[in-house]
Amino acid sequence: MKKLLPVALGFLLAFSLSASLAFSAEEQHWGYSGAYSPENWHKADPSFAMCKEGKNQAPINIEPRYDVALPALELRYGRKGETVLNNGHTIQVPFSNGNSLTVAGGAVYSLQQVHFHTPSENTLAGRSFLLEAHFVHQDENGNMLVLAVFYKDGEKNPGLEPLWAAMPQAAGRTAKLTEKFDPMSILPASLDYIYFNGSLTTPPCWEGVRWCALKTPLTVSQDQAQALRNAMKGPNNRPVQPVNARPVLN
Amino acid sequence: MKKLLPVALGFLLAFSLSASLAFSAEEQHWGYSGAYSPENWHKADPSFAMCKEGKNQAPINIEPRYDVALPALELRYGRKGETVLNNGHTIQVPFSNGNSLTVAGGAVYSLQQVHFHTPSENTLAGRSFLLEAHFVHQDENGNMLVLAVFYKDGEKNPGLEPLWAAMPQAAGRTAKLTEKFDPMSILPASLDYIYFNGSLTTPPCWEGVRWCALKTPLTVSQDQAQALRNAMKGPNNRPVQPVNARPVLN
Repeated sequence: MKKLLPVALGFLLAFSLSASLAFSAEEQHWGYSGAYSPENWHKADPSFAMCKEGKNQAPINIEPRYDVALPALELRYGRKGETVLNNGHTIQVPFSNGNSLTVAGGAVYSLQQVHFHTPSENTLAGRSFLLEAHFVHQDENGNMLVLAVFYKDGEKNPGLEPLWAAMPQAAGRTAKLTEKFDPMSILPASLDYIYFNGSLTTPPCWEGVRWCALKTPLTVSQDQAQALRNAMKGPNNRPVQPVNARPVLN
Repeated sequence: MKKLLPVALGFLLAFSLSASLAFSAEEQHWGYSGAYSPENWHKADPSFAMCKEGKNQAPINIEPRYDVALPALELRYGRKGETVLNNGHTIQVPFSNGNSLTVAGGAVYSLQQVHFHTPSENTLAGRSFLLEAHFVHQDENGNMLVLAVFYKDGEKNPGLEPLWAAMPQAAGRTAKLTEKFDPMSILPASLDYIYFNGSLTTPPCWEGVRWCALKTPLTVSQDQAQALRNAMKGPNNRPVQPVNARPVLN
């Protein structure tokens, strides 16, 4: 038992590190293909154990089971993004405090960053999309809420252009945007959503994350999706995970 | 990284052990008071990390948020229990296959064992009960479903008597029942329930467990509850855990 204690403590310490590490540690050996692919994430670091052992992981194939009156979402996104980071796993726009998401009658979340996956990570009744954006929020207690938006194959998405024009090709590089990025510009008019309880879709795959997936997809062009794949050296989507005991609400 | 790999493997191995160990390993140093109390469970073994790090743990304070049409439960409990075990953490009646719970339109679960906590582990809108029974089921894929029944302070519960008459006082002892135990005898007539996604309430605190808590409490006498407390050398309830991102369905 004495020998095991340091191991347990190490595990817990690793679990306690800030979530921001997950998005900036280019040194961590995980990715989307070969030896670093999602089925091997848990082998890269003991703190990634949840990627394999978690029973409430994201993404999922979203098939709502229960119709309920979900509380409305209210967005107050006043601030625009000014930089774009290629962290080797995605391209990401950081936000300082000031953009809020309120769940009616509930908590207020602050937008931390927006990032992208191609193809989509979640699927909707088995349907994959060309692109998915994750608007990552946190409330004052550290609870996370991800607003997910799907983009189907179609017209070029003008809201993405300020990011795509500046997108760094090398991992670890940040670029200043010539034209500021308005997060409202890549959201549909309707905020109707599906709710499920999930996790980060990247190591360390922490759970307890609230997922709100908007029902209305927008469009993205094949060229735009290809530009993200190029910067990522391939697709950057984790495959869907088992739903297990989770109810999915509509 | 090389040094960390054996740790990760050990963690995963420990996670892969049969759930039944959790109920029979008297050697494991965990309990409900002092140094072994629930807030210290994660320190007893690296494989108990989920007890601290899990975001979908049981028990909870049950406050249903959404009214839905939950599928009906159908019980076919034909077999009676013949022995009772004091495993040091609870008293427990094992069942061989033959007693099934079917979720309408869904999976079929087989009753594995019934055990008891005093006071109740889950609470209902803040209300604690004198006793709670857990009917632990598993489907053919290893998914777990716990049917929880509450017993409030009141008349002696006659269905418990065959167990209570034979209840071993020492941890690790099994007694043969003089009168067989009918699991139906301690269930209410109505199987109306509340649903949530949770975990085992004892180490290793594995998640992905379906919880169905019956809304109708039965009664238990103060003497019966005291007899269980005596055999356990005190209360054997884990405190309620944060609900986090989970919807609770009515």
